Amino acid sequence: MRILGIDPGSFATGYGVVEEISGKICHLEFGIIRPARDHAFLLRLSEIHDAVVGIVLRLSPDEVAVENPFYHRNVKSMLQLGQARAAALLPVVKAGLPVFEYAPREIKLAVAGHGNAEKEQVAKMVSLLIGHAAKIPSGDAADALAAAICHSHRSQSLRRLNKNLA
Amino acid sequence: MRILGIDPGSFATGYGVVEEISGKICHLEFGIIRPARDHAFLLRLSEIHDAVVGIVLRLSPDEVAVENPFYHRNVKSMLQLGQARAAALLPVVKAGLPVFEYAPREIKLAVAGHGNAEKEQVAKMVSLLIGHAAKIPSGDAADALAAAICHSHRSQSLRRLNKNLA
Repeated sequence: MRILGIDPGSFATGYGVVEEISGKICHLEFGIIRPARDHAFLLRLSEIHDAVVGIVLRLSPDEVAVENPFYHRNVKSMLQLGQARAAALLPVVKAGLPVFEYAPREIKLAVAGHGNAEKEQVAKMVSLLIGHAAKIPSGDAADALAAAICHSHRSQSLRRLNKNLA
Repeated sequence: MRILGIDPGSFATGYGVVEEISGKICHLEFGIIRPARDHAFLLRLSEIHDAVVGIVLRLSPDEVAVENPFYHRNVKSMLQLGQARAAALLPVVKAGLPVFEYAPREIKLAVAGHGNAEKEQVAKMVSLLIGHAAKIPSGDAADALAAAICHSHRSQSLRRLNKNLA
């Protein structure tokens, strides 16, 4: 199963696609969508939207994982984040892909082994988990991959559980 | 010039289309997009998106007006509002329509004559301004029409000013 992880943001939206092959997580692609900084906000949203449409067409993910945002930011940045989130998620909803949302704590626990892991620690563990990456994912791309890996682990556990119950 | 006013919200997104004909504001249509309450949040966003696509195709507006939100809400509702806002505005950005944003105070001033007008007063003035409406616009539809009327007034003043300067 191919999973697209997304970490939405109006300046930088991270994404990463992973696939579990024989119990090992492989990455197909990761990167950061950076809308032009000098473009109007609504145009930047449109650029995020189009980039995600392209990723879905190119990499054909089966499911999508996204981190639930922290609620400790200020209201203005939450409004911007909300808009970036919709711009990134609308194309996958339109494509009929199921979206799974995870709390930041759950993702850190799944990837780094404890729920209070630092950002750098998560990025390092993501690099190790996806194997010898040509380049090490940074910031938002690492967060997106972390969400995808978290969902991959969850799905595997669920499939094992269902098999044992069957 | 045909103006689409939008008042985005995840439970109710108001819209209204007005056109200035011989110095008088006429309304073509107004209403409220209400995504199914029992649908998942992301599906509701998709429903708002599709409804706005339909409005744009059906009524062919030239420009779009939207109210800038108040920033006094809590962060969670701002995140939801942001997502609804992007779902409603992405289709018009994609259609290449220019979007004009107005502060709540500016809209109240344009429609009701003063910047601290109550919601009911705005709705009443909107009804009067668009003439003998078959039904009186309520809540979010009135707010959307108010944004459209505000933009219509602004554009008229600007056109007069440009004419005088020419």
